[in-house]
Amino acid sequence: MRIDILSLFPDMFQATLGESIVGRAQESGFLDINVTDFRKYTTDKHNHVDDAPFGGGAGMLLQPQPIFDAMAAIEEETKNTYPKGRVILMDPAGRRFDQDYAQELAMEDHLTFICGHYEGYDERIRHLVTDEASLGDYVLTGGELAAMVMIDATVRFVPGVLGNQASPMGDSFSNGLLEFPQYTRPADFRGMKVPEVLTSGNHQKIREWRMRESLRRTLHRRPDLLKTAKLTREQQRMLEDIKLEEDPDVPD
Amino acid sequence: MRIDILSLFPDMFQATLGESIVGRAQESGFLDINVTDFRKYTTDKHNHVDDAPFGGGAGMLLQPQPIFDAMAAIEEETKNTYPKGRVILMDPAGRRFDQDYAQELAMEDHLTFICGHYEGYDERIRHLVTDEASLGDYVLTGGELAAMVMIDATVRFVPGVLGNQASPMGDSFSNGLLEFPQYTRPADFRGMKVPEVLTSGNHQKIREWRMRESLRRTLHRRPDLLKTAKLTREQQRMLEDIKLEEDPDVPD
Repeated sequence: MRIDILSLFPDMFQATLGESIVGRAQESGFLDINVTDFRKYTTDKHNHVDDAPFGGGAGMLLQPQPIFDAMAAIEEETKNTYPKGRVILMDPAGRRFDQDYAQELAMEDHLTFICGHYEGYDERIRHLVTDEASLGDYVLTGGELAAMVMIDATVRFVPGVLGNQASPMGDSFSNGLLEFPQYTRPADFRGMKVPEVLTSGNHQKIREWRMRESLRRTLHRRPDLLKTAKLTREQQRMLEDIKLEEDPDVPD
Repeated sequence: MRIDILSLFPDMFQATLGESIVGRAQESGFLDINVTDFRKYTTDKHNHVDDAPFGGGAGMLLQPQPIFDAMAAIEEETKNTYPKGRVILMDPAGRRFDQDYAQELAMEDHLTFICGHYEGYDERIRHLVTDEASLGDYVLTGGELAAMVMIDATVRFVPGVLGNQASPMGDSFSNGLLEFPQYTRPADFRGMKVPEVLTSGNHQKIREWRMRESLRRTLHRRPDLLKTAKLTREQQRMLEDIKLEEDPDVPD
């Protein structure tokens, strides 16, 4: 997969995307990430990339020209090796990013992220994009962090990237439920003990405990997820048991 | 405001938080960010910070000891200068981060973020925290990017950080609506023109156009926001006009 990023802060990406899973995916050839500083493409003699808004108001807006020309250069560079692929603009009005969206993007061969900065951009830049995406209902200084988040969450679904040791399908959300509580050594840490069942060696009981605690946590903290999760008959029965156990007087 | 971050990847923060608004806030003394590599606190002779889960399963979990001891060291270091403040763990089961949450955190004097890594952490680490927070329904390689996003969105609300040139209250969401379309020079970019009203110099018309387009975009793309937005009488009337204009046959 090739990922292009248009940003005025190319240094932000090196340290962040060089570490951890995304860094390893680049080393092993699964991923080719290129950051373009679109200031290089400005035709303004002072290298400005922004200007005041028409109609007045505070803040400066990114102008269309440098971004249009940087996009054209990327298209020219990649036209023989990659399809044009999806072009993603980070915008609060965009489609909410989630695990399904990440899986969808992971199937592409070429993604391009356009990172605005916090005061906004010229509306005409939207003509370049296939996707407008939002991380959530909050405002960031720039699109850089948002792009990094989307890249990180997406790359985990690219086949081969996580290796055999872990599967994104075991994550929270991937089966529609929150994950069960996990414990590692020591079994007794300063008086806080691991639940006995987990050290019992009884695999059937461990499996049941985990399924039950996953359902319980989802019920308590994200009951909305239970409306869309596809539960097995065993899980449905467990969920009824949990509800009854916790509040025996409430009818179904 | 002091921000402590516990992370195994301290280098990720330097490049990212050094740039832009967060970097300037540090330079001007509004913000004091400290990253602690909790691997330094491990008592394991090989410097391991993780171990296999009790009960079996793939992946390694962060052990409690290094994180408990790193937290104790931060408390000791800051006890005379800062209140303990809120301690935030990034977790998919946590409270969804949004603009209100950011404003709430911006009122604190001391925040601590604990960044796990993607295979999970020992459940007992939750005893250390006041907040479990989630960026959205997706899974990241580590908590680092999520902490950066929260810090970026929060710091913008710390008084003085954005300076006088811009106010976070003008952002999307801060008035409950999406922002109106913005344009800058040139007025005609490769055949794509700026709406005439914006170059008319008629400030009353510009103000109305912007309010109308903000309402229109919110109606089209995030109608859910209109349920909670506090609209003025003028905005309510405009919204009715927009609905009528777009679909005159539908009764209210």
